[in-house]
Amino acid sequence: MRNPKEKYLKAADYLIAARRNPTAFGGKRNFMIRGLFLGKFQPFHIGHLEVAKVILGEVDEIVLAIGSAQFSYTPENPFTAGERIEIARRSLLDGGVDLRHCLIVPVPDVGTHSIWVSYVKTFCPKFDVVYSNNNLVRTLFIEAGYQVKPSPLFNREKYSSAEIRRRMREKKDWRSLVSQSAAAYLEEIDSESRLSEIGAPTQEEHTP
Amino acid sequence: MRNPKEKYLKAADYLIAARRNPTAFGGKRNFMIRGLFLGKFQPFHIGHLEVAKVILGEVDEIVLAIGSAQFSYTPENPFTAGERIEIARRSLLDGGVDLRHCLIVPVPDVGTHSIWVSYVKTFCPKFDVVYSNNNLVRTLFIEAGYQVKPSPLFNREKYSSAEIRRRMREKKDWRSLVSQSAAAYLEEIDSESRLSEIGAPTQEEHTP
Amino acid sequence: MRNPKEKYLKAADYLIAARRNPTAFGGKRNFMIRGLFLGKFQPFHIGHLEVAKVILGEVDEIVLAIGSAQFSYTPENPFTAGERIEIARRSLLDGGVDLRHCLIVPVPDVGTHSIWVSYVKTFCPKFDVVYSNNNLVRTLFIEAGYQVKPSPLFNREKYSSAEIRRRMREKKDWRSLVSQSAAAYLEEIDSESRLSEIGAPTQEEHTP
Amino acid sequence: MRNPKEKYLKAADYLIAARRNPTAFGGKRNFMIRGLFLGKFQPFHIGHLEVAKVILGEVDEIVLAIGSAQFSYTPENPFTAGERIEIARRSLLDGGVDLRHCLIVPVPDVGTHSIWVSYVKTFCPKFDVVYSNNNLVRTLFIEAGYQVKPSPLFNREKYSSAEIRRRMREKKDWRSLVSQSAAAYLEEIDSESRLSEIGAPTQEEHTP
Amino acid sequence: MRNPKEKYLKAADYLIAARRNPTAFGGKRNFMIRGLFLGKFQPFHIGHLEVAKVILGEVDEIVLAIGSAQFSYTPENPFTAGERIEIARRSLLDGGVDLRHCLIVPVPDVGTHSIWVSYVKTFCPKFDVVYSNNNLVRTLFIEAGYQVKPSPLFNREKYSSAEIRRRMREKKDWRSLVSQSAAAYLEEIDSESRLSEIGAPTQEEHTP
Amino acid sequence: MRNPKEKYLKAADYLIAARRNPTAFGGKRNFMIRGLFLGKFQPFHIGHLEVAKVILGEVDEIVLAIGSAQFSYTPENPFTAGERIEIARRSLLDGGVDLRHCLIVPVPDVGTHSIWVSYVKTFCPKFDVVYSNNNLVRTLFIEAGYQVKPSPLFNREKYSSAEIRRRMREKKDWRSLVSQSAAAYLEEIDSESRLSEIGAPTQEEHTP
Repeated sequence: MRNPKEKYLKAADYLIAARRNPTAFGGKRNFMIRGLFLGKFQPFHIGHLEVAKVILGEVDEIVLAIGSAQFSYTPENPFTAGERIEIARRSLLDGGVDLRHCLIVPVPDVGTHSIWVSYVKTFCPKFDVVYSNNNLVRTLFIEAGYQVKPSPLFNREKYSSAEIRRRMREKKDWRSLVSQSAAAYLEEIDSESRLSEIGAPTQEEHTP
Repeated sequence: MRNPKEKYLKAADYLIAARRNPTAFGGKRNFMIRGLFLGKFQPFHIGHLEVAKVILGEVDEIVLAIGSAQFSYTPENPFTAGERIEIARRSLLDGGVDLRHCLIVPVPDVGTHSIWVSYVKTFCPKFDVVYSNNNLVRTLFIEAGYQVKPSPLFNREKYSSAEIRRRMREKKDWRSLVSQSAAAYLEEIDSESRLSEIGAPTQEEHTP
Repeated sequence: MRNPKEKYLKAADYLIAARRNPTAFGGKRNFMIRGLFLGKFQPFHIGHLEVAKVILGEVDEIVLAIGSAQFSYTPENPFTAGERIEIARRSLLDGGVDLRHCLIVPVPDVGTHSIWVSYVKTFCPKFDVVYSNNNLVRTLFIEAGYQVKPSPLFNREKYSSAEIRRRMREKKDWRSLVSQSAAAYLEEIDSESRLSEIGAPTQEEHTP
Repeated sequence: MRNPKEKYLKAADYLIAARRNPTAFGGKRNFMIRGLFLGKFQPFHIGHLEVAKVILGEVDEIVLAIGSAQFSYTPENPFTAGERIEIARRSLLDGGVDLRHCLIVPVPDVGTHSIWVSYVKTFCPKFDVVYSNNNLVRTLFIEAGYQVKPSPLFNREKYSSAEIRRRMREKKDWRSLVSQSAAAYLEEIDSESRLSEIGAPTQEEHTP
Repeated sequence: MRNPKEKYLKAADYLIAARRNPTAFGGKRNFMIRGLFLGKFQPFHIGHLEVAKVILGEVDEIVLAIGSAQFSYTPENPFTAGERIEIARRSLLDGGVDLRHCLIVPVPDVGTHSIWVSYVKTFCPKFDVVYSNNNLVRTLFIEAGYQVKPSPLFNREKYSSAEIRRRMREKKDWRSLVSQSAAAYLEEIDSESRLSEIGAPTQEEHTP
Repeated sequence: MRNPKEKYLKAADYLIAARRNPTAFGGKRNFMIRGLFLGKFQPFHIGHLEVAKVILGEVDEIVLAIGSAQFSYTPENPFTAGERIEIARRSLLDGGVDLRHCLIVPVPDVGTHSIWVSYVKTFCPKFDVVYSNNNLVRTLFIEAGYQVKPSPLFNREKYSSAEIRRRMREKKDWRSLVSQSAAAYLEEIDSESRLSEIGAPTQEEHTP
């Protein structure tokens, strides 16, 4: 095993296998495991939903940590943490996910990367496996002693929050990329207007 | 009506009545209402649980906002936001509450009271009625245009987070004041040791 | 009325009309209205001055809110809040404006857009109408219940703070774009040197 | 001169004398001096007004710096910066002071004393003399190279913001301690209710 | 072993023993160990010096972390981080300690206890053993996976920073509690005046 | 002398000359001077080492202030303050510098330039001369009353932290640009992996 990080993947797989088939691993089932799914979810889309479903097939409960929680009304972070919770909840319900197994937690950004992991730990209930394809996130959590698994991929070319924001700004079709109730809510809060307003601020005045 | 704040109470009652019996109020049911229950929940106890149940008898969903979310390991704020979420969830389950109707959201303190309401609004999904007996909280939310109701009382002399913390620190009986699973979890994280350690720091060294 | 935001404009116009001609609106004059003029004012120029004059033709007092107050000595924000107050005061005096009707208030940036409006409200005395052409600013204040009017335009191609900063950096003529006393003050603090120094920091050393 | 701080007092007196009688000091009048008057002004009262008048008898313009600007709705800091500006302006008008010579500037607290002076310098236009009876404030400004004068005293036993807040909380007579228009404004915003609400928060709920 | 924390003590002792006598522990010496000594050092006194010497008898290098680094000019934190570095260096030199084995590092407070350990880790070079008698500090570092040893005691009744500050404030003898060069420096910056000024601020004015 | 800043250079040179040859300047040697060397040191390289040596030829002690101390794990700021201290210490030892004359102090960024100088003063022990080629840094320190000298140059085309970071990211040769022990340490913490991970984060997931 040339890459020392591989051991964390193996450990995560072992944990998940032991959880699923306790007898084969010589213990009785007396534990529950949680997976951490990190994102900014600006907004939560069908790709996120499918990833959440795959994770919930491996662990008992999912902690959906909504990063950069304090930001909103910017081109990259148009929605508030509260709105992002609403969209994620509606999407998960649309997808038939039982909300009792989902813990949706906003986590503010702290501006200092080496400290960020302890912020996530402080705001979220205990979790066992971190799902991420981001190399830096992986490194930071592995250095903090966590087991990290690659996030399952689901058609990333098609489902992308950046693409959804771009289409909202240009009032093109974005509804097919989010779940039905999420689309209804995003219309209710007039996301197209918000995105196009944020996208072209006049220069000289104060843009907060 | 001598106190102008009474109108907000009446409005909240009207909203709740309309929601329960739409026909009598001349409309069909096409809306859902949410109640905001604010607290530090250090820790969530049986009194909080009973309040949550009463609120859930009036509204469709409860937003449990965990204030001062970034603090922990202090005499007043011993538990992290993540631990407080864990305790609240277990207590609500013990109390037979359906977690699908509960949105548990940590909200960091912002240090500036007049700004705090907009922080709560940013972190939490939309809510309709605020339950509170705290006069300042009531004032701040009424000034922000919210409907505010008095929080139902449930044996406040007996069930008190401050009392639970005191008993933990002194290793006296506190288990009867929290739900069964909450007690088990609080033992698991060895809350008695933590509280007694926090309670008596040596002076000259750095207490973070 | 297809755009719901139009009602806020109408309301602002109505308020201004009622203020000017109380009898026609069936009331006696017993109120004073204030207009909020937001900007970074890096620096305040003749265009700003003309806008302030137009606003003061409509309202009794103007609140000049100096945004991003904590920043200075950067290419985009070269002047401190204190210097910006000085420049605005001198410009208004040059323009024959009575300073007794001007409230100049520095407002720090808060980094979180949805919270920014409540910061402006906290730092500034009560105001009634917000003047802005920035769509996001308009949206945020309308959502907060304010009446918003388009900011009067005054030769925006010619008078631009960004252009003034560019010319200062290149030591070209910028004096014609600010009032006479403002120009004298900007020379006194040697703005050309500051701008050119800020504009070309060496890379490897610490630029604060 | 045994106390090295005395030289700063002398320098301030010299500056004020030179400003008043330029010929006697061998120069022609070509400068204006400003005095800094620091306070939290919670609220601005008749004592503050009399101090401001004395200072304006010595200098050309007064910079009234409103400290702890970001705080409000606490027992010690009940009023927002904006409200404190309003109260100070009305009091100064009641006292016959020309507002054109008053610069009222909110300054946020920075939490770090050695840095605070540079914060005051950043937010306020240039000032020449600091008026203060607070030893720490004096030390900090003298170390920063400022001339510091003792603040003129005006019946401090009678006029005290802490006493006014106490009386508001207890709904006793506080009106005689503030100017007439200030009293009217403080009634308008229902300061008695606010103070009594802040004064007795219930414990278990979240007090922001 | 009834207390699970004992294992961390044993591990620390083992590490120190292995470092001192590598052969007996079956390895050759190829490592260096560092001890972390945490404090606010307001100011560093003879007790601290003796503790540092004992620690340097056990480890190769000492990391002296100066906590609450951003605070100064308060009754509890009168000296800046820079002044505290100066005092510690002079004391260590007086005590015959080789400064080449001392890393003095200011660490700002972060306001959030569960995050504080990661702040210490970010600001300080790698360390192996934490010396502390503070229960909370011990808990936090043990939870973060560190080996923790009790801090050696040295006449704590006599040598106390709080006592030194009290004596400075009252201009009583404090010189015997600090090293000779530290005393000279503390006189140079006129610590008695600073402490007595900080200790009795007038109430109504702004104390930063 | 047409540029008023020249006087600060002269003053610095005078101070250094007086320090070296006290008799010629009519005083006996009774003082020590310190030079401030500011940088982010991401990482400290051979060019920095040579600059430090030249400075130590002019002053008694060097204060190496590590700016942006709270940042790490970003493309521009990959290393923590603690790691940067470690690298600088090892490099100085490699270069034969006596660590007893080096004070290495991390200084957090404060986000507000006009305040930054007072932050540096708060965190660092007293220094007499500032070495910098950055115009803004020079301006800010001169305005604060410091003597500023140009930083000695040492082959800046070759030795550059940005270039080192680029080569690490691309796993090309960077070892020749840092000292031998620094290179060993940078391998120990696997800087190449860290830099390449930070350099290419996936977009949709949360990059802390």
